[in-house]
Amino acid sequence: MGKVYLIGAGPGDPELLTLKAARLLASADVVLHDALVSREILERISIRANVVDVGKRYGKKLLTQDEINALLVSYAASHEVVVRLKGGDPSIFGRAGEELGALRRANVEFEIVPGVTAALSAAAAAGISLTDRRIASQVLLTTFSRGADGNAMEWGCLTPATTLVLYMPGPDYAEVSRQLVEAGLPVDLPCAIVSGISGAEQRIRATSVGALATEAKLPAPALMIVGRVATQQIQETADAFWSGEGDGFSVPFISVS
Amino acid sequence: MGKVYLIGAGPGDPELLTLKAARLLASADVVLHDALVSREILERISIRANVVDVGKRYGKKLLTQDEINALLVSYAASHEVVVRLKGGDPSIFGRAGEELGALRRANVEFEIVPGVTAALSAAAAAGISLTDRRIASQVLLTTFSRGADGNAMEWGCLTPATTLVLYMPGPDYAEVSRQLVEAGLPVDLPCAIVSGISGAEQRIRATSVGALATEAKLPAPALMIVGRVATQQIQETADAFWSGEGDGFSVPFISVS
Repeated sequence: MGKVYLIGAGPGDPELLTLKAARLLASADVVLHDALVSREILERISIRANVVDVGKRYGKKLLTQDEINALLVSYAASHEVVVRLKGGDPSIFGRAGEELGALRRANVEFEIVPGVTAALSAAAAAGISLTDRRIASQVLLTTFSRGADGNAMEWGCLTPATTLVLYMPGPDYAEVSRQLVEAGLPVDLPCAIVSGISGAEQRIRATSVGALATEAKLPAPALMIVGRVATQQIQETADAFWSGEGDGFSVPFISVS
Repeated sequence: MGKVYLIGAGPGDPELLTLKAARLLASADVVLHDALVSREILERISIRANVVDVGKRYGKKLLTQDEINALLVSYAASHEVVVRLKGGDPSIFGRAGEELGALRRANVEFEIVPGVTAALSAAAAAGISLTDRRIASQVLLTTFSRGADGNAMEWGCLTPATTLVLYMPGPDYAEVSRQLVEAGLPVDLPCAIVSGISGAEQRIRATSVGALATEAKLPAPALMIVGRVATQQIQETADAFWSGEGDGFSVPFISVS
């Protein structure tokens, strides 16, 4: 009986793999990977490993989640080191939950190896501190998708000191803009779009919640950072809110609906 | 004129450094590091580098933020590779904002190298998917600290599908529990405490928002994961909410105050 490693491959740049991920890829017997994992990272897999692409590509689902779960359990019965390689970090929009459940039910030993999630790499590229203590106190990592009623975003309410990171915003920027405004965010709130995160084609565009509606599209996969931190002209904003050397925030709590 | 690298060292395990971080540490001329960076990671720094501990230790502030900012600018004037090494990821509670501002004002070239933030490593260790799509749709990364009025937490309102990650919860679990309940979270909502994240002394305790009040303390630094995902008995919970193979959530939106 082998062991299954659920590994975060990071945002794409092979240098943003962890040392542990790189070591395990080099010694893997089997690797099941998502389509989003970059070619440069796949090149780091042991040449004797059995490599299986279980990801979705061009809208075509190669394998269902149940099939992937079953494959993991079955490979673990006959191989020592089974790697499930996911883009970013397994615990952030990586659908690790169902795979963990299947492994637990089948009594297969497993280990999760965390990775750099896209939000962190996008913030690094844009020169943004997601929790800049002068103007932000928390980060909400979420996706852009319609709620159960096909309308409302299920974000709860945000404080002015919340940085919102939208994974998978999709190509309809006007709709994203509309929903952000509907959620109570000011139209002039900064918004940074980061596309092709950590790769050679990485692009960053600084805009605002309102202006987003008419921005030209950047290629997927992309991510949006929305909040007062999402600008490099942060000093002026910060000076208006930051009152000194303490740890407290002088930003008043204003709940938006 | 050199270049300053703001590098995330990850949660502590040296194997959770990125390849890029390891490469830069091995070639650094100067490294300014926080107290939280582990000894095993410091051992990876080039032996010819000038290593400066700028962190807080035992409540004693070694250097002010302004002094650290000035040091970075000054080292960059005389050294090629200046590394500012922070625990976790620089953009998550890493106080990178002020340092970036100082580097920009001084026209010093810089680059941020993202790292594995503690929440991801804690979730991996606890076998938790922070965004398990059956019962969670988003993650709020925040800290436990009193708001401006010394009372309310500035979290805004949470949906039942929000996973809350509390960095630096401190030793007063009763107070944390009280404020979580006050924020409208159910007393039986699962809560996992992870202490000594990714290190040899790592400990994980499964509790609930209510029971947290009387839990024995785990050593700092620690982190709490609060939400329906924070249990390994997730299947039963999930089955009640998860309605099939689609991407939508059947969890109704209920705003808590």
